[in-house]
Amino acid sequence: MNLSGFNFIDGQRSAEGDTRLHSVDATTGEQLPGAFFQATLGEVDLAVEAAERAFPIYRNLPAARRAEFLDAIADELDALGDDFVALTCRETALPTARIQGERGRTSGQMRLFAQVLRRGDFYGARIDQALPERKPLPRPDLRQYRTAVGPVAVFGASNFPLAFSTAGGDTASALAAGCPVVFKAHSGHMATAERVAEALVRAAEKTGMPTGVFNMIFGGGVGAALVKHPGIQAVGFTGSLKGGRALCDMAAARPQPIPVFAEMSSINPVLVLPQALQARSAAIAKDLSASVVQGCGQFCTNPGLILGIASPQMSAFVEQLRAHMAEQAPQTMLNAGTLASYGKGLAALHSHPGVSHLSGQPQSGNQAQPQLFQADISLLLEHDELLQEEVFGPCTVVVLAADRKELLRAVRALQGQLTATLLAEDADLVEFAELLPILEQRVGRVLLNGYPTGVEVSDAMVHGGPYPATSDARGTSVGTLSIDRFLRPVCFQNIPDAHLPDALKNANPLGIARLVDGQSSTRALG
Amino acid sequence: MNLSGFNFIDGQRSAEGDTRLHSVDATTGEQLPGAFFQATLGEVDLAVEAAERAFPIYRNLPAARRAEFLDAIADELDALGDDFVALTCRETALPTARIQGERGRTSGQMRLFAQVLRRGDFYGARIDQALPERKPLPRPDLRQYRTAVGPVAVFGASNFPLAFSTAGGDTASALAAGCPVVFKAHSGHMATAERVAEALVRAAEKTGMPTGVFNMIFGGGVGAALVKHPGIQAVGFTGSLKGGRALCDMAAARPQPIPVFAEMSSINPVLVLPQALQARSAAIAKDLSASVVQGCGQFCTNPGLILGIASPQMSAFVEQLRAHMAEQAPQTMLNAGTLASYGKGLAALHSHPGVSHLSGQPQSGNQAQPQLFQADISLLLEHDELLQEEVFGPCTVVVLAADRKELLRAVRALQGQLTATLLAEDADLVEFAELLPILEQRVGRVLLNGYPTGVEVSDAMVHGGPYPATSDARGTSVGTLSIDRFLRPVCFQNIPDAHLPDALKNANPLGIARLVDGQSSTRALG
Repeated sequence: MNLSGFNFIDGQRSAEGDTRLHSVDATTGEQLPGAFFQATLGEVDLAVEAAERAFPIYRNLPAARRAEFLDAIADELDALGDDFVALTCRETALPTARIQGERGRTSGQMRLFAQVLRRGDFYGARIDQALPERKPLPRPDLRQYRTAVGPVAVFGASNFPLAFSTAGGDTASALAAGCPVVFKAHSGHMATAERVAEALVRAAEKTGMPTGVFNMIFGGGVGAALVKHPGIQAVGFTGSLKGGRALCDMAAARPQPIPVFAEMSSINPVLVLPQALQARSAAIAKDLSASVVQGCGQFCTNPGLILGIASPQMSAFVEQLRAHMAEQAPQTMLNAGTLASYGKGLAALHSHPGVSHLSGQPQSGNQAQPQLFQADISLLLEHDELLQEEVFGPCTVVVLAADRKELLRAVRALQGQLTATLLAEDADLVEFAELLPILEQRVGRVLLNGYPTGVEVSDAMVHGGPYPATSDARGTSVGTLSIDRFLRPVCFQNIPDAHLPDALKNANPLGIARLVDGQSSTRALG
Repeated sequence: MNLSGFNFIDGQRSAEGDTRLHSVDATTGEQLPGAFFQATLGEVDLAVEAAERAFPIYRNLPAARRAEFLDAIADELDALGDDFVALTCRETALPTARIQGERGRTSGQMRLFAQVLRRGDFYGARIDQALPERKPLPRPDLRQYRTAVGPVAVFGASNFPLAFSTAGGDTASALAAGCPVVFKAHSGHMATAERVAEALVRAAEKTGMPTGVFNMIFGGGVGAALVKHPGIQAVGFTGSLKGGRALCDMAAARPQPIPVFAEMSSINPVLVLPQALQARSAAIAKDLSASVVQGCGQFCTNPGLILGIASPQMSAFVEQLRAHMAEQAPQTMLNAGTLASYGKGLAALHSHPGVSHLSGQPQSGNQAQPQLFQADISLLLEHDELLQEEVFGPCTVVVLAADRKELLRAVRALQGQLTATLLAEDADLVEFAELLPILEQRVGRVLLNGYPTGVEVSDAMVHGGPYPATSDARGTSVGTLSIDRFLRPVCFQNIPDAHLPDALKNANPLGIARLVDGQSSTRALG
């Protein structure tokens, strides 16, 4: 496979350490050829120092130059061949079509950020022109734009080895913002990570980027050193609540605390409302069960909680759902750790007196068995921890309220979520008019009559939400708004035009929309 | 003075506790009549619960209704009479003209946020219209806007008893965002706080706001309970590094961590460059010394560090500066605690072997004596803590570099700052072209040929900066961008027009600019 397993530091390859790591075939557990060198603490330092050196150069490149880099990354990703797809499939047990699609999503994401850079609204340019005659005091000339926060550490996810990993959304948005990246390769797909890092480095070379713009280190123990390094100014993370919270705590305890954007845990409630049930119970049961097991349930937005109101129709629906779930085949998970966690999560559900098992083969062997449970609503109302954290895998839990009022109470008791879904007819939306505003307070995205899996990469997407869905509800990790996480505002007071950044020059050479004296305008100033 | 000293909870007055606090005349130290009741832990809970009850109502009011509230607050502030100004002057020892001006700034700030609400750009509205025919998958209709994060705890500053306190920038931006506020009254001006809180409550009543929209509690020990309360979703703070960091640590350790926007410590370097020195040394010495002692140096943006390159001209300038500083009269500080801190800061400077005292009467008595020091540049280059944290008061420190290169090294060694100022001619800007980009990485605002005191409240202002200037460089606590701190994005997927917030409806009833399919537009959609 021609993999060196070396770390990527400052455009070079480096293997100072003795600890070798191995990637495995996710389906067979067989060790793949080759080894990856865990970064030493010295290499962590070197990687961050390379990013720090690149930072003042990279952040000051014209945004159009950074766009060229992102487009070049996209081209390199698209050019990764069938052998690359096969490698990723082997490391993750994900199907070929899925990885091909994910590659397109990942390169598309890079190109979308290139567009954002050319569009220029990310600058948030604002100009308050001088008012020298103002009484009692004149107003100086004030101009604000947003600039990169500094080098960013990124921790990818196992479940999207491309779109949420080495060249994924966090890397794309940080690079777009002007922040060099130090990426901690995920242990679940190190070979894939090496291939993608090579693509990134090729793109950086082809477009003349500073060598430290992208760095990647291998190793399980290096993450803490990375987050604690004084050169790192922000962290992007997708993974478990435990892992994300640990990074947040580390970052908050630094001499200089830094923001951590961790996308962590969500049970993504789906509310099945009465009129929808009456209209299309069978279709909902079928589609919902398909959504639960899609990709072996290994999505951040997998529907882990189905909420409804008890009724004869609801009982019939649960029975339909049970029948569909019972038909779902077992699937291979991303890795042994994920499967073990799934088993533990199921065991906790099985052993809780307030939870009954509705369908699913006993969990054993090396595949995940789809499971359906029903839990007493008291678990939600009393904030039982069991129903708060997601069971990552093809499993969901039905909870029934006695009536409309209890349903609203249960929804109010929910923790922060990435998504909430309403399966509803128009009449339901009128009858349950309180639901939308309550859900809006608790989630990053509210969906009607769809399923939360499948996250569009676009301007309007929010893949975020209140804790514990993420560590900072003000961010999104998917979509163009995610660039905001890595930008901070700077104001220039009475700086001559020649010394201002292009975004703020009088002539508006970038042709961008700016807030000038309180009005949006693309005009040149006198 | 007709002050009850009761806490403000849910539109009512409350005094459950036994601990009484007293305000003092800042000039004489004399205790003012009346007492303030420290809030009990039960009252802290009640205040937050009131804010929580108000939240779903208040955040969903049309922005124009919240704007009416802010305008009404502004009117109430403007209507506070001469007796109010006299009271504030008595509590803070600040001069009448200053408090009159600050009242105008504070009401102006409220009106500016009312304009922002009517302008509607704070919504950040984005619409990606459905693409039902897209291959391989259709795109759903996705619409994003920003909504309030939840109840906010605000801690005001002593040095701006109006503009950074009860109805100050943090309160104004939180209320504008749709977040009810629980304000912790500053112990340095509790009578002023009561008068301002009354004004806020009157405005809330007149405009029909929910009663819990603004609450205020008295007491030294109640801040921690407030920040730890699960109902609080963000914190605004202006004050010391120690105080701000303590709040950050508390907020990060909560079961649900929340963001803290703390504006803390800045020494606001002023760089005096050679050509400027040649052109106008005398004027700079005069203006700079005036800026250092203005308002007894009690500004977050007070110039605490003067940087230049050693030369005969520079020596002459330092002598001019010394002469001006020696002429400055002592002034009464905000309170005894501030004076004691000033004395401690001076003592530390006096006792450091790398620091020499250039001018200033020995610090004693009940007024602050203006002081000028000179420190060896090694203190900056070696990150000596003495030069990192501000000495709050009429004091500044000169540091001279041997040459251009050493000056750049010293600037690179600076911690995060609210401001940096260049006193420079055009030729200096060319010769020191690296300076601007380096400073931009370290500060929230870069000024040319002005003085950092005097912070304009406008769209383009940034009163923020990297740590320790603030706890989150991505925010500003002055200017309209400060509303962003208290907003988070939410996405609606396939929600029918009738159930969308007005900002996202097809007809664009608010007439706001929206990013529609990647292009800014105010048009109605089909």
